[in-house]
Amino acid sequence: MASSEDYLIYGRHPILEALKEEKPFEKLLVQKPTTAPELKQIITLANAAGIPVQFVPLQKLNSITRKNHQGVIGYASVLTYYLIEDILEKVYADGRTPLFLILDQITDVRNFGAIARSAECLGADAIVVPAKGSALLSGDAMKASAGALNKVPICKVRFLTDAIDFFNLNGIQVYSSDVKGGKPLSQCDFTVPVAVILGSEEKGVSPSVAAKANARFYIPMIGELDSLNVSVSAGIVLYEVQRQRTIPA
Amino acid sequence: MASSEDYLIYGRHPILEALKEEKPFEKLLVQKPTTAPELKQIITLANAAGIPVQFVPLQKLNSITRKNHQGVIGYASVLTYYLIEDILEKVYADGRTPLFLILDQITDVRNFGAIARSAECLGADAIVVPAKGSALLSGDAMKASAGALNKVPICKVRFLTDAIDFFNLNGIQVYSSDVKGGKPLSQCDFTVPVAVILGSEEKGVSPSVAAKANARFYIPMIGELDSLNVSVSAGIVLYEVQRQRTIPA
Repeated sequence: MASSEDYLIYGRHPILEALKEEKPFEKLLVQKPTTAPELKQIITLANAAGIPVQFVPLQKLNSITRKNHQGVIGYASVLTYYLIEDILEKVYADGRTPLFLILDQITDVRNFGAIARSAECLGADAIVVPAKGSALLSGDAMKASAGALNKVPICKVRFLTDAIDFFNLNGIQVYSSDVKGGKPLSQCDFTVPVAVILGSEEKGVSPSVAAKANARFYIPMIGELDSLNVSVSAGIVLYEVQRQRTIPA
Repeated sequence: MASSEDYLIYGRHPILEALKEEKPFEKLLVQKPTTAPELKQIITLANAAGIPVQFVPLQKLNSITRKNHQGVIGYASVLTYYLIEDILEKVYADGRTPLFLILDQITDVRNFGAIARSAECLGADAIVVPAKGSALLSGDAMKASAGALNKVPICKVRFLTDAIDFFNLNGIQVYSSDVKGGKPLSQCDFTVPVAVILGSEEKGVSPSVAAKANARFYIPMIGELDSLNVSVSAGIVLYEVQRQRTIPA
């Protein structure tokens, strides 16, 4: 975690102040058992702000920093988060066709960084992630993205299902990847405004999230292994969208 | 290198015997200065077999194994290598259209593994690599490939230029990736027998290798960053080939 060191905030008072100022955190680690009233206040504020709180033993906190953390360490966000509605407004104002990537439970920092890099190169307007259960977007993710995390807007939402409802209401087709069914990728129509959901390699897209999508797609495979690396899948999807959008009609 | 430990052979006699039996090695590390006659004999045999030899200080060898290495450590190949001509014969016998991936100077083990995984999933017939200046295909690469390195044939050649000459002579179109020019990927004809060259992210395809190709292509980009991760590029290229080969004419 050496390269994340810069983004650590520790100690009860500094964390409390940061929370009161609405400074964004990726997550908080709090020592268990939690008895100090200040720690309880921190947890209440973090919950209200939708910041994930993990309860860990003292040794874990000591292994992260040797400084006086007083039972709480916060990972400050290195990113500015955007609202989906603001991005959408800008995309339409710029005269482009919206292209959102929705990442469900993609927790591997290197994969997340690689996806952000592809999203930047291949023109995704934003990446939508849930507040909980996504990769920790600290210094390591930034490095893996080759700086792309500074260029592609990230929208963090409390529930992906709400984000998909918003897309549906706004006439954006939501496609969900599915190894088991749907249409082959190249037969989906990506010339319309779209949001594409990708899930983790292990679990795929959560059923509750997939259920909200308008359609499912798969990347046709030939070999014996049943899945591509998720960052490769993301690159292929973005490539296919742009291919359809740029070929002469 | 812990996970590669299984593939180490060390000591002058064991290495000499292995070389005489033509056991494949990924590379040999030899202590410098090299004065022992046995080490000189090892170097001669390794050169004759096209096995890369690296000269390193004693400390380096000691850091790899604490056992009695006598100034030489070999990384045994975990793979069986194939001949391009044998693969080609099999592909035609199976009634398929050849699809080879040529990797020029791709030294990152994780990228190599990810490419092998995509090659397996998306139906490449083989990956062609040079004997020198490629990723070390030991246990770590196998892990990164999710086992695909056991399923996709790897052809190791002394010079990529010779392999491309062979492809040219056998009517296989050789396409080289090029960030600066050529045709957009989707406008290349991949319905014919093809071999596609990808280079390292830093340097691209070597000029001498690119010069032998029949045509150049690029993946159209929209963002500010100028390059995709090479394993993502490989996935996109393989996807595009299979898309062209499966769409109704």
